[in-house]
Amino acid sequence: MEKTFIFGHKNPDTDTITAALAYAHLKNELGADAEPVRLGEVNKETQYALDYFNVKAPRLIETVPENSDVILVDHNEFQQSVNNINNARIVEVIDHHRVANFETKEPLYFRVEPVGCTATILKKMYQENDVAITKEIAGLLVSAIISDSLLLKSPTCTQEDIDAAHELAKIAGVDLEKYGLDMLQAGADLSDKTMAELISMDAKEFDMNGSKVEIAQVNAVDTSAVLAHQAELEKEINHTIERKNLDLFLFVVTDIINNDSDALALGKAKDNIEKAFDVTLENNRALLKGVVSRKKQIVTSLTETF
Amino acid sequence: MEKTFIFGHKNPDTDTITAALAYAHLKNELGADAEPVRLGEVNKETQYALDYFNVKAPRLIETVPENSDVILVDHNEFQQSVNNINNARIVEVIDHHRVANFETKEPLYFRVEPVGCTATILKKMYQENDVAITKEIAGLLVSAIISDSLLLKSPTCTQEDIDAAHELAKIAGVDLEKYGLDMLQAGADLSDKTMAELISMDAKEFDMNGSKVEIAQVNAVDTSAVLAHQAELEKEINHTIERKNLDLFLFVVTDIINNDSDALALGKAKDNIEKAFDVTLENNRALLKGVVSRKKQIVTSLTETF
Repeated sequence: MEKTFIFGHKNPDTDTITAALAYAHLKNELGADAEPVRLGEVNKETQYALDYFNVKAPRLIETVPENSDVILVDHNEFQQSVNNINNARIVEVIDHHRVANFETKEPLYFRVEPVGCTATILKKMYQENDVAITKEIAGLLVSAIISDSLLLKSPTCTQEDIDAAHELAKIAGVDLEKYGLDMLQAGADLSDKTMAELISMDAKEFDMNGSKVEIAQVNAVDTSAVLAHQAELEKEINHTIERKNLDLFLFVVTDIINNDSDALALGKAKDNIEKAFDVTLENNRALLKGVVSRKKQIVTSLTETF
Repeated sequence: MEKTFIFGHKNPDTDTITAALAYAHLKNELGADAEPVRLGEVNKETQYALDYFNVKAPRLIETVPENSDVILVDHNEFQQSVNNINNARIVEVIDHHRVANFETKEPLYFRVEPVGCTATILKKMYQENDVAITKEIAGLLVSAIISDSLLLKSPTCTQEDIDAAHELAKIAGVDLEKYGLDMLQAGADLSDKTMAELISMDAKEFDMNGSKVEIAQVNAVDTSAVLAHQAELEKEINHTIERKNLDLFLFVVTDIINNDSDALALGKAKDNIEKAFDVTLENNRALLKGVVSRKKQIVTSLTETF
């Protein structure tokens, strides 16, 4: 039996890493030979969850062996996937994002549901397949829901996510609120990050009607401390725009306590931000009141304007 | 509550029509307001099934109202969908084909499984939702499986399709073999078709690495009778190539008794047929031994060569 590689998106977040780990575990329990892998560094938030539940991070890869069977979790757009995705055979996709820039030659198992987190779908798949969710797996999955929903506060969070989070917290033996805030705060510690790291640690690139848009997001307890370095951030962002030939780079600093976001926009299409959010950019910045979700609040509104 | 429109692909076949009918029935049983519609004429095979189970065909539409909620069944590629698909909000996809040329702004429920027929997935969804499958719905669904699998003989047919077909035939109260052959033969009656109808009644357009390829397929008991009119067929095909600016038009006549196909290829990329199937075109024609499935045997091999 050929090994199947399971991975989430580049610039992995907690949902991406834990989805690869959990789905590989489920697949292996069902008799497959699956290896979870990752396409980038583990962030502090994810590391907190891994340490807490004593689970090793998946192996880092840059490419998959030619013609490998692969399963994409927590993403489907090729520009967010492994570099040589066009030389792999995609056998499954488990995701909760919009579908775009994806194509296969053959039919596959493609499961996307409009929930807040891949973990919520995976929890259901454990149950559909009558495989018990261990304490560790439950811990990983609940961490992913906390991460993607900012502790159940994001508008992407559905009742199904909420129910799953409570059920998984119980199996994992953690207090959802206490563990959740600790984990988010571990991730919001940006003190040791360089400017280049801040704008790339959770960055995703999107094709919006032919325009290239990159959106980076970081969580923070004190957003103004992050944006105090605006001049240096802009220098790094302009480098990235030039190198990748982007039309727009949007850097979003999300306040995990008040659930707003501070946005910094650069690039020739930056006016689209004003249209999308009905704000005026001042010194390239705007406060996006109540905006915390890249997927549901930012990508959706921004795509409309392109 | 806004009405949701449910439809399959253009040039509807039995799986597309019955999937729209069955899924709308399931959705309505679950409290939605869904209307099955169709994007083209009902073929003789499908009409046979509808008449047998005394079910009315869905309403014919050309476009959906602007910003409608829609559910795509049995297809996902936009060029096979309703003309104004870009102005609709796709809330779900239930399909069993490759995924390509599909994009949404928002997350959705997207369920594609590598089985032989949409009906097999729908049967499972009835069961997942604890909704009883009526005699009529069972009849429609088993007709779709028979149609897409050429009575369980196509390489696209999986064990899940076979099991579903037997179970559904029982609920529908039909003998699978007898009913299946009668239905296929009703569909293979091409006696009243014009040349233009023959090449368009089950035609699908594909984008293959930038090339435009149209593949039309008809079932026949006597394939040579169909291809006796080759000169007239070629005239019609060349019209279509010119009008749609196609690189390749492949007309496939499938022998439902022996399970081979006679192919007629025109267009500037017709050499790709020789590469894809390791055959030599003579007088633009070749016998494709054992080839019955457009999806699994034709599109896959042909996409490789582009």
